[in-house]
Amino acid sequence: MLDDLIAAVGADHVVAGDDPSVADLCADEALGVPAGTPSYVVWPGDRDEVAAVVRAARAAGVSLTARGAGTGLSGAATPDDGAVLVAFARMDRILEIDPVDAVAVVQPGVSLADLDAAAGEHGLTYPVHPGETTASLGGTVATNAGGMRAVRYGVTRSHVLGLEAVLADGAVVRTGGKLVKVSSGYDLTQLLVGSEGTLALVTEVTVRLHPRLPVRRTVLAPFPDADALIAAVGRVVSSGLEPAVCEYLDGPTMRAVCAAADLSLGLPEDLVDADHLLVELAGRRQERVDEDAEELADVLGAAGARDVFDLPTGSARRLVEAREKAFWAVKAAGADEIVDLVVPRSSMAAFLSRARAAGDAHGSRVLGCGHAGDGNVHLAVFQPDPGLLEKTLHDVFAAGTALGGAVSGEHGVGRAKAHALAEFGDPVGLDVVRRLRAALDPDGVLNPGCALR
Amino acid sequence: MLDDLIAAVGADHVVAGDDPSVADLCADEALGVPAGTPSYVVWPGDRDEVAAVVRAARAAGVSLTARGAGTGLSGAATPDDGAVLVAFARMDRILEIDPVDAVAVVQPGVSLADLDAAAGEHGLTYPVHPGETTASLGGTVATNAGGMRAVRYGVTRSHVLGLEAVLADGAVVRTGGKLVKVSSGYDLTQLLVGSEGTLALVTEVTVRLHPRLPVRRTVLAPFPDADALIAAVGRVVSSGLEPAVCEYLDGPTMRAVCAAADLSLGLPEDLVDADHLLVELAGRRQERVDEDAEELADVLGAAGARDVFDLPTGSARRLVEAREKAFWAVKAAGADEIVDLVVPRSSMAAFLSRARAAGDAHGSRVLGCGHAGDGNVHLAVFQPDPGLLEKTLHDVFAAGTALGGAVSGEHGVGRAKAHALAEFGDPVGLDVVRRLRAALDPDGVLNPGCALR
Ligand SMILES: Cc1cc2nc3c(=O)[nH]c(=O)nc-3n(C[C@H](O)[C@H](O)[C@H](O)COP(=O)(O)OP(=O)(O)OC[C@H]3O[C@@H](n4cnc5c(N)ncnc54)[C@H](O)[C@@H]3O)c2cc1C
Ligand SMILES: Cc1cc2nc3c(=O)[nH]c(=O)nc-3n(C[C@H](O)[C@H](O)[C@H](O)COP(=O)(O)OP(=O)(O)OC[C@H]3O[C@@H](n4cnc5c(N)ncnc54)[C@H](O)[C@@H]3O)c2cc1C
Repeated sequence: MLDDLIAAVGADHVVAGDDPSVADLCADEALGVPAGTPSYVVWPGDRDEVAAVVRAARAAGVSLTARGAGTGLSGAATPDDGAVLVAFARMDRILEIDPVDAVAVVQPGVSLADLDAAAGEHGLTYPVHPGETTASLGGTVATNAGGMRAVRYGVTRSHVLGLEAVLADGAVVRTGGKLVKVSSGYDLTQLLVGSEGTLALVTEVTVRLHPRLPVRRTVLAPFPDADALIAAVGRVVSSGLEPAVCEYLDGPTMRAVCAAADLSLGLPEDLVDADHLLVELAGRRQERVDEDAEELADVLGAAGARDVFDLPTGSARRLVEAREKAFWAVKAAGADEIVDLVVPRSSMAAFLSRARAAGDAHGSRVLGCGHAGDGNVHLAVFQPDPGLLEKTLHDVFAAGTALGGAVSGEHGVGRAKAHALAEFGDPVGLDVVRRLRAALDPDGVLNPGCALR
Repeated sequence: MLDDLIAAVGADHVVAGDDPSVADLCADEALGVPAGTPSYVVWPGDRDEVAAVVRAARAAGVSLTARGAGTGLSGAATPDDGAVLVAFARMDRILEIDPVDAVAVVQPGVSLADLDAAAGEHGLTYPVHPGETTASLGGTVATNAGGMRAVRYGVTRSHVLGLEAVLADGAVVRTGGKLVKVSSGYDLTQLLVGSEGTLALVTEVTVRLHPRLPVRRTVLAPFPDADALIAAVGRVVSSGLEPAVCEYLDGPTMRAVCAAADLSLGLPEDLVDADHLLVELAGRRQERVDEDAEELADVLGAAGARDVFDLPTGSARRLVEAREKAFWAVKAAGADEIVDLVVPRSSMAAFLSRARAAGDAHGSRVLGCGHAGDGNVHLAVFQPDPGLLEKTLHDVFAAGTALGGAVSGEHGVGRAKAHALAEFGDPVGLDVVRRLRAALDPDGVLNPGCALR
């Protein structure tokens, strides 16, 4: 296989998997998934090289795992031992920003930050904005990444218009195009989005861009409890104010986030430990955003907010950024696992209380924040004992799915949540997934350790 | 099989396919697809009856075609001879309008009009609005219907959050839920949307609702030619004005539509035959919509509109409705086929001129209108000679796909466009579709005559 891999990408772009120089590439950011040791790491330079790599591995009976930026939180990019790790770092070109059709065509290794900056030169934005904007387009397509702005713009799935990808047999498929809609047979674009590198390796991505909104206003509203806060979220969403951000942070998370960012908001001390709702409005015209901010304050006040703070631009930006980095803050604080279940928006409060009860039952500490507008709850679980941690997580997944939720809203299944999906997912649906996977990858070469048990 | 079908749905709900009482059910509205003669038409009353019907047909080696309201324009609901036609008319209950989570849960036989009316009682709307609102939720899910409001709200795909469906083996799968986003394995909801009854029969649909916008303003702008009009569409979309409707009508279509609706807009005679752009703005506040209408008029004027008419509410509503019914108008005028290719928005003008040239080359008349904001061009082709009609259509599909387009933007492939998809679709993609279909329906019982050749 080594000869074939070298023939595929060149000797400069193949490194043995146990070489110390690639140690950092052998795991993503998932807290509970140990690094693997791939046979080789390869860096293809274009689509044909990706196809040649796939054929080489397949011929040798070896599996492949794709790696974007490795910021994933589910172990989806963590290679199984012996697999070929396909790193997309060299395929990082923005091929086209088309301001007329408001689309971009990029290679999978392009980062969200670079794409958004390039779009910005045309007054456009790519609004998929998970906490870590070093994430790659290929990785975000494979996880269907969300982030804070999904409440207004939708997740990755809403933005991907077309893909080029290499299938398990090395064939190249092209789906969609610069088309905002299509109804011409099964939507293979949508099937590949969220498939975590198990159906195809993505070699080109066409995404929709949006006009960049110049005006922003951000308010922070502490609530007496999560119930009141979640009820307020429903009212904000149904108000038609179309918030650009609608985030929940519990008191301890707020403290951790502000401390990590060295940010003081000057809140009265008795409010810091409250449950916080952070809402950003964005628009084209200052006077409308100002008017909407007043309406928002009224909605939040009527919904029981203890106060509504209009954040100055600098603090607002820093708080939003600090919230994006909440993962690092809770990781630094010693969190043992992070999960991101999604439940019906109105069930968030019930889920939070059941999740905390699950924590209490097993002596675990459970902190929460989340993309409240989407019903997507991010829980940090502190429990050093592996058995108790597993029990806590089990009960958390049980609570969320019993409320009509799913095991992940945006981080994906990966290796971290495959057992939870197997236990709590729809069994017929899982069987369908297995059949689809077998149809496209009969030998199981694409990320076989990922997503299914 | 008859005994099994009767056992499944009751004798009152099975009729022989050649019974005159069911003649109307044996075709949809596609102009070029002849009616089929099913063996039986059955009307299941619930999910379990659907599953029993599927098992009965499969056991007998007979295929099944689902039928919603039969308003489809691609022959997707037209049964193959001998198939069991599964009519969803009895499964027409709105199970839940949940204003807190802004979702609805409905049976597949519910019409768009009924769902939108029920949502309206809560200040909400289901904005999927193809020209024919008698269309059913099941049918619109299966075709991924679009319509005039897709430019703002997206197509059916953007709204379906969860499904219950019966697979080819009679098993019941549940996908998604009241969840605005999810990343927990392949998105089976999205795979089933647009699958035209070939992967599963949908028995329950969960969709997202939106706040109903109370204020509307509509303008009509005649342009000197399609090039200028299409360039204007790009500017309207990138303006951030978020039009609720953005429609193109050529002069003859405008005449036909107004005549069919007995509508006089009082346009100067020399403008009636121009290329028309119809734009509707919608919002929460009158003063903003008014201000936006002025901005829109400026954008259109700067883009070369010959004039910009602010339509009075009554005429605007009637014109929008008449445009929705354009299909009936051009059908009455004797159109022989209607196609709805989608191309990159900026390529619409090029596509229109190539499509007209194709018409000229074969002596066919080609009229155009379309959801301009989406790049979705609806062409009516007048050509009584079947051979010349086929040649014209062939060249039209060739022109659209050469511009990066697809054979259908919203009507689907069905029986009418299966050959076009086979010729102009991505061959690897078609092979993938075949493998997926075989994986879920190995015996080919679900609508086998549809979508693939
Ligand atoms: C601080 C922090 C905050 C975060 N916040 C959010 C958030 O708010 N919302 C959110 O959704 N996520 C968030 N994440 C998670 C992470 O950013 C996303 O999962 C992101 O999509 C991963 O992108 P990546 O390029 O790092 O992919 P990787 O981690 O490298 O890979 C992810 C998956 O994509 C596959 N893959 C990568 N490239 C390709 C390709 N070319 N073809 C096929 N498959 C490929 C991998 O095999 C793997 O299955 C956060 C992560 C961190 C560290
Ligand atoms: C005047 C007019 C204007 C139109 N304008 C538009 C427009 O602007 N945009 C647009 O997108 N369409 C438009 N259409 C087309 C049509 O309305 C859509 O295709 C609609 O989605 C069809 O819905 P239906 O219930 O009539 O489905 P049918 O025609 O009955 O069936 C369509 C497909 O759905 C399948 N199906 C039906 N029910 C189920 C089920 N329960 N489970 C699985 N599969 C099922 C059928 O097998 C078939 O494949 C128009 C049609 C007319 C007549």
